[in-house]
Amino acid sequence: MAMMSHKPSHELVHFLEDKANEIRILSIECTNASKSGHPTSCMSAAEILSVLFFNEMRYSNDYPRHPSSDRFILSKGHAAPGLYSAWCAAGLFDKDKLMTLRKIDSDLEGHPTPRLNFIDAATGSLGQGLSVGAGMAYVGKYIEHASYRTYCLIGDGESAEGSIWEALSFASHYKLDNLVAIFDINRLGQSEEAPLQHNMDTYRKRVEAFGFHTMVVDGHSVEEILKALAEAQSVKNKPSALICKTFKGQGSSDVADKLDFHGKALNNLSEKIFGEIKARMHGAAEQPRPKIKDDAPELVQKPIAFKTPLEYKLGASIASRVAYGDALVKLGEACDRIVVLDADTKNSTFALKFKNVFPDRFIECFIAEQNMVGVSLGCGARNRTIPFCSTFATFFTRAMDQIRMAAVSQSQLNMAGSHCGVSIGEDGPSQMALEDIAAFRAIPNLVYFYPSDAVSACRAVELAANYKYMTFIRTSRPATTVIYANDEVFEIGKAKIVKTSAEDKVLVIGAGITLDSAMKAHSSLLEKGTSVRVMDPFTIKPLDKEAVLKHAKECGGRVITVEDHYAEGGIGEAVAGVLSNADFITKHKILAVREIPRSGPSAVLLDMFGISANKVVDAVLDMVE
Amino acid sequence: MAMMSHKPSHELVHFLEDKANEIRILSIECTNASKSGHPTSCMSAAEILSVLFFNEMRYSNDYPRHPSSDRFILSKGHAAPGLYSAWCAAGLFDKDKLMTLRKIDSDLEGHPTPRLNFIDAATGSLGQGLSVGAGMAYVGKYIEHASYRTYCLIGDGESAEGSIWEALSFASHYKLDNLVAIFDINRLGQSEEAPLQHNMDTYRKRVEAFGFHTMVVDGHSVEEILKALAEAQSVKNKPSALICKTFKGQGSSDVADKLDFHGKALNNLSEKIFGEIKARMHGAAEQPRPKIKDDAPELVQKPIAFKTPLEYKLGASIASRVAYGDALVKLGEACDRIVVLDADTKNSTFALKFKNVFPDRFIECFIAEQNMVGVSLGCGARNRTIPFCSTFATFFTRAMDQIRMAAVSQSQLNMAGSHCGVSIGEDGPSQMALEDIAAFRAIPNLVYFYPSDAVSACRAVELAANYKYMTFIRTSRPATTVIYANDEVFEIGKAKIVKTSAEDKVLVIGAGITLDSAMKAHSSLLEKGTSVRVMDPFTIKPLDKEAVLKHAKECGGRVITVEDHYAEGGIGEAVAGVLSNADFITKHKILAVREIPRSGPSAVLLDMFGISANKVVDAVLDMVE
Repeated sequence: MAMMSHKPSHELVHFLEDKANEIRILSIECTNASKSGHPTSCMSAAEILSVLFFNEMRYSNDYPRHPSSDRFILSKGHAAPGLYSAWCAAGLFDKDKLMTLRKIDSDLEGHPTPRLNFIDAATGSLGQGLSVGAGMAYVGKYIEHASYRTYCLIGDGESAEGSIWEALSFASHYKLDNLVAIFDINRLGQSEEAPLQHNMDTYRKRVEAFGFHTMVVDGHSVEEILKALAEAQSVKNKPSALICKTFKGQGSSDVADKLDFHGKALNNLSEKIFGEIKARMHGAAEQPRPKIKDDAPELVQKPIAFKTPLEYKLGASIASRVAYGDALVKLGEACDRIVVLDADTKNSTFALKFKNVFPDRFIECFIAEQNMVGVSLGCGARNRTIPFCSTFATFFTRAMDQIRMAAVSQSQLNMAGSHCGVSIGEDGPSQMALEDIAAFRAIPNLVYFYPSDAVSACRAVELAANYKYMTFIRTSRPATTVIYANDEVFEIGKAKIVKTSAEDKVLVIGAGITLDSAMKAHSSLLEKGTSVRVMDPFTIKPLDKEAVLKHAKECGGRVITVEDHYAEGGIGEAVAGVLSNADFITKHKILAVREIPRSGPSAVLLDMFGISANKVVDAVLDMVE
Repeated sequence: MAMMSHKPSHELVHFLEDKANEIRILSIECTNASKSGHPTSCMSAAEILSVLFFNEMRYSNDYPRHPSSDRFILSKGHAAPGLYSAWCAAGLFDKDKLMTLRKIDSDLEGHPTPRLNFIDAATGSLGQGLSVGAGMAYVGKYIEHASYRTYCLIGDGESAEGSIWEALSFASHYKLDNLVAIFDINRLGQSEEAPLQHNMDTYRKRVEAFGFHTMVVDGHSVEEILKALAEAQSVKNKPSALICKTFKGQGSSDVADKLDFHGKALNNLSEKIFGEIKARMHGAAEQPRPKIKDDAPELVQKPIAFKTPLEYKLGASIASRVAYGDALVKLGEACDRIVVLDADTKNSTFALKFKNVFPDRFIECFIAEQNMVGVSLGCGARNRTIPFCSTFATFFTRAMDQIRMAAVSQSQLNMAGSHCGVSIGEDGPSQMALEDIAAFRAIPNLVYFYPSDAVSACRAVELAANYKYMTFIRTSRPATTVIYANDEVFEIGKAKIVKTSAEDKVLVIGAGITLDSAMKAHSSLLEKGTSVRVMDPFTIKPLDKEAVLKHAKECGGRVITVEDHYAEGGIGEAVAGVLSNADFITKHKILAVREIPRSGPSAVLLDMFGISANKVVDAVLDMVE
């Protein structure tokens, strides 16, 4: 292994020590000003931040999100004051602004969010940063072939999160030698010691076993950090990790390595602390920082449209998950920034179709959904790529916290969940998504697509690629009938009326397999002399409220919703949220799954759990009686 | 390290080899009958299952959930046919029943669920089993001091899930020497090779670094498995792991170690396969199995009630999270089966109060929420304990998939999530639970408590301890006023009307901090001459539908809901789901958070995001105009 050949100069060491202490003081000052925050978690990381920001990383204050600048992810997001202090010390903004920490009109929030122009991903829910960093590093190495490097600072407490180990595993599998994971092992968690305390050798063994070039470092020695970072630069085909032994609250003899100071401003103690810290400062001269190597490709952002028409036959039977795969290929042809990620289900979600055509833009994440979502977010950061990740819809619940945080990150992130609901059949309840509409519809700015046929599934994918924030596309396992012409135009938030007449007695709203139930019910009911209107909402969020109200009114206020999902938080309640404020009386029946389902044939399950065509017919007849 | 001193007899080896092949054949036969399922994933584990079920494990066919029997968790749930075949071969049920696999009227579902009397925890969402096993082992070792052991079979594909590593870390931290993790390294995932393929040494290093006594084993050699399991029995103060090198589809020359056979019945190939397998059978004589050591304590299950009255003062200011801690202590006094689990937030959730009184029944799980929920499920399995786990409400979204699966497991599992909503203040959006009502209300059978004062928080905890399935208790960070007498009686699904008069113009429904908003609005509005009725729903699921309808009607159909949660899937939509089917016209306004919030003082945020008392006043005045 190549080692750094020369010792750093005294001037550099003193300068970096001074900067570390400046970061310490600023962190204490700004948390004093806000009377809350986590100064002690910043103090342990002060030397790490100093070396990164004042010697190692290539970045520009003029353009913090420069495509070619190095990336930094603060996975231990509660150390935000330390990060803000580093940027302040680096001159991005002045101290007055730093002192607005946690104020209502300041973007310097308690935990970092991309409202700040130097933050790529929101952190604060622990254990998520390394996945994001791995996504950025993957794009840098394999998609953009650029020289920027990615650094991720991780706390010891959060190392208990499995997602960290998913990310380590991913990073080594893909030989991300442009990624450096820096563990700040400050021994103390929030409410007690972290489980491994200062057992550095165990950390080393674990991270090494996960395939990283691993260096145990005195995290308060700028010389050791310098050396380790230089060594990391020389390691090829392996990511590197610094396991830094540090002390929480380092810099203050009253606070360092003591419990009970987590998340507390140090107002009363700070006079003495400042004295101690300042006594250690050298007044060293400013040292030069490395310049950006401007070699990331230029982005051309423009609307993305399929280059060739869809070619489905009206009336044909095609599962929307198959169409998802078709659409990905069409997207890939239209735009070279599309990347597709999978969690070892690509032959079920049909993301495999994309891999077959564009293997270089396909990222296999194996069975680690949290990491897949985090990597996707990293891929999409700074708009470098447009990620689509897919697995069974229900397994996206594994990444619910990452998805929640991706919303805070204001990410463009597209997810497609297949195998929704009881209609999957024999695999049973563990594989059936029945809570996903409720969970993901609550995510702010997320568009929830629920296409019912192949054409609308493709258009959902096309619209998703052009949407600024997150999307979730719910696809189905069973084949459904193609009901739309290939050139039908779809819009986010616009429902389609697929059956209508002047005599309609009930508005039936279904999606996916239950739109099929609704269509079949429509035919049966016509034979019995009852006419119903059938609506395909296309997006469950935003829901086409105007259409719901208009057609509900035209159908005498009678509405039946039918969905392959539990009753809570699904289509029924979304519709109810509109009807409950209608200026006419509504009768609304929610047909949904109301108990834990079981294994069996798809059609039998639809009937058993109350969402088949027959059940729609019964509900309609019951309502119009 | 102690080693097994004598070689197993030929008779035993032949018998176990025969049983392995019997399991193989049965697995193929039952998946042939269902024309679906995962026979090849069973074939790799046949020898492991054989040795466990016919030599190692102590269990009783008469009473599969015997308190003292060894526990077995099939983390790789898709190998269910193998597990069912093992139980069939062991005589729990006959082959005719086995052949009902995946049929609509059979409990032998595609993935195991506790509808079967020999299953403790549903599996099928991968990577979850070891946490459950660790919970069982923890209870066996530290709570029950019993000799039963716990075995968990894990696939290599699912080893990519971070939750496995959370569980390994937990198990070694607590020295669970009664736990054996068995990795079935069959090299192949669903859609391609698992990332580490047959790199046994990397698996060994990883699992060893995570603190397990780790043995690499030929997973098709019953002798090696016997030896390793015996060795595991002799290891003290460390859990053990067998890293078994196996081949997917082992037993068939056509199928073994080949891709493209995942999740496929082998109907056409099976004649030849049966021939190959049968040619290897010895016709060995039955061998004795070990008997249960009946030393787990007897359970006394009876209703649990606090032994002493609550002692809050009406009008006092107490956060519901503080009351949660008080209530846990009272529960602990009333019942020695209560255990409390934490993810390093105990000083914020106030679970610390329980630890201070009952340290032996407190389990620190560190920052690994998925594992905490899984361990809780394991603790509660076979009703051995009644677990309460707590962290910030929003961090329970990290375990959404585990929570979903716990419902399929029909677990008694209580969760308390603190720090809900924007009212937490300066920490910012990463720490604010705003999707949790939507996500967890969709979980079947789950009771969602949202107490608004200290008294109701305590009663929620007491009711939860007596509820058969899952509960989620949402507690708040800010103090709220005690509004109920200490002896007020609460029921699941019963709302309280806290302000009422004959002149009420609008029904205002709030909970937690927004009940406080509603009460303050009530006072302000009275001064302005407008009377509103105020409802505390207490449980959001089940919602007191009758009360909502009755009081909405009495208030002229005018309803305002106000919640510290996003608008989708929360209190507003739950109420809308009732109002949309009312037989009178309703006007319903949902006050909820509608954009990503930010850091700031609690009261300012409530107002900024539209859920303060002022905003309720405005909405009421607007509605009654």
